[in-house]
Amino acid sequence: MSHVIRRVAIVGGTHGNELTGVYLVKKFQEFPDLLKRSTFETVALLANPKAVEMNRRYVDRDLNRCFGRADLANPDLTSYEDTRAKEIWAQLSPKYDRGADFIIDLHSTTANMGLTILPSSKHPFNLQLLAYLSELDRSVRVFFREEDGEDAPMLRSLSACGCTIEVGPIAQGVVNANLFQQTEMLVYAILNYLDATNRSNPLVIASHLTAYQAIVSVDYPRNSVGEIQATIHPQLQFKDYEPLHPGEPMFLTFTGEIFPYQGESTVFPVFINEAAYYEKHIAMVLTKKQQLQLETASNNVPSNTRNKKGL
Amino acid sequence: MSHVIRRVAIVGGTHGNELTGVYLVKKFQEFPDLLKRSTFETVALLANPKAVEMNRRYVDRDLNRCFGRADLANPDLTSYEDTRAKEIWAQLSPKYDRGADFIIDLHSTTANMGLTILPSSKHPFNLQLLAYLSELDRSVRVFFREEDGEDAPMLRSLSACGCTIEVGPIAQGVVNANLFQQTEMLVYAILNYLDATNRSNPLVIASHLTAYQAIVSVDYPRNSVGEIQATIHPQLQFKDYEPLHPGEPMFLTFTGEIFPYQGESTVFPVFINEAAYYEKHIAMVLTKKQQLQLETASNNVPSNTRNKKGL
Repeated sequence: MSHVIRRVAIVGGTHGNELTGVYLVKKFQEFPDLLKRSTFETVALLANPKAVEMNRRYVDRDLNRCFGRADLANPDLTSYEDTRAKEIWAQLSPKYDRGADFIIDLHSTTANMGLTILPSSKHPFNLQLLAYLSELDRSVRVFFREEDGEDAPMLRSLSACGCTIEVGPIAQGVVNANLFQQTEMLVYAILNYLDATNRSNPLVIASHLTAYQAIVSVDYPRNSVGEIQATIHPQLQFKDYEPLHPGEPMFLTFTGEIFPYQGESTVFPVFINEAAYYEKHIAMVLTKKQQLQLETASNNVPSNTRNKKGL
Repeated sequence: MSHVIRRVAIVGGTHGNELTGVYLVKKFQEFPDLLKRSTFETVALLANPKAVEMNRRYVDRDLNRCFGRADLANPDLTSYEDTRAKEIWAQLSPKYDRGADFIIDLHSTTANMGLTILPSSKHPFNLQLLAYLSELDRSVRVFFREEDGEDAPMLRSLSACGCTIEVGPIAQGVVNANLFQQTEMLVYAILNYLDATNRSNPLVIASHLTAYQAIVSVDYPRNSVGEIQATIHPQLQFKDYEPLHPGEPMFLTFTGEIFPYQGESTVFPVFINEAAYYEKHIAMVLTKKQQLQLETASNNVPSNTRNKKGL
């Protein structure tokens, strides 16, 4: 089986103030030849143009939480982002002729997450791609969110095969030349991998994959009216993916009190001090580090994964 | 002459998403004893509560550009920020009984400006304070903006004596424990200095002051519809206050072209890649480094500086 990836979508500006993806998509739209591979078609899409124009994460509601199956099917949801989600779903859903078999959604974070890939699912096709990319660039990290899977509300979930790229640390509303180039190179590496796979000439894949599996998110200490009372402890700030041991400092209150990590096992926090997560009551996400042994099966996309969210 | 500083105002949240100042002011409001000095009264004020609530720089208009004399006197300006500016002016203007003789306005920046102080004016009282603070903490930098003076539109301009503190690099919408504590310590150092001066027991002041005087601001390269076409060159990113020599890289276009600095003399850029300045068409502000010889005169506040913007 070859040519199973027929159409790839590269999405930026799902969050309007994450400019790395916004300007990469604009570049790809201006120079479509950069995305040209002979075995598939690639489209570059700005997901939330109104939020981009306003330089805000979203207008009414976080677009990257609007792709749950029930929400997409609910005609009563008519906010700007709910409407955009339905339009994007109609454009990218694999059920449609010109739907996408593989989605790359470009994000950035104020956390020190370097180049992180969050796959749409743990489909073997994704895992093999991740193993390839981790081997190609040892700085690439793989993060599995707890809510990933068929009914996740993220844009990437429109296709079983695909991923979000999170790059950081970078402030909202800012472009950083190095992180821009690193993200661009990673996109090309993915396209080249997909192209080689389509040609039944798959690139060499490691048999192991290191990944960080989300366990639970942790909120900031807050007062009775919900205001934060502490910030990330200086020893933990910018230490994404480093081990946090029981008893080590987690928060420092504004009055100088230390709140230690009270869990019983060592964890690896990520999304530490992400600006957009204050309102989601997430100070960080604790993960466990995993070594996965990969299947040696074909890395083609089984056809039964191509009707996701066709409802 | 003693006790010339009778009332100090510490202002945070002039920009609603610069959280260092927001949470410092909240802390000071909860623990007013931290600000207590026997020779003056101190008030802690949240300047733009609606923008703080929305976690945005401003609602309608940048509040820190609303304090020009003509704007304050213009009854036709009725946006949220224009209204707040008039309220703050009424509260802090030294013309009023309970006005402020000294204003500290707390800001943050995505540029790597460490602890930077921007005085309200080059009044000798300010310069002596700056010399004291620079000597106390060698990491403190002093920056003179080109538009400073009596009719500047910044909040700090309500009083001839006072300053803005800019701390960075920090993303909008984020608190960083170290930068929070450094800003807090700097506020206390200023209060202690003012208190000692009031007691006619001034703290030891260096005879020299190093300062960076703004020359001109530089915009990003843009296309015909105003979109940026380049970002700060990696060699310049985060290099605030470091020398930039003629011919050295300034911008890197999205297609990989280098735009060098074309000036004829070495400059010291600041506010490099500040998120909020994209819309102001400022990629950085070029400065020249100056050594100032300070007057040895009394460092008390002359009474003729106390009626600024009394209109």
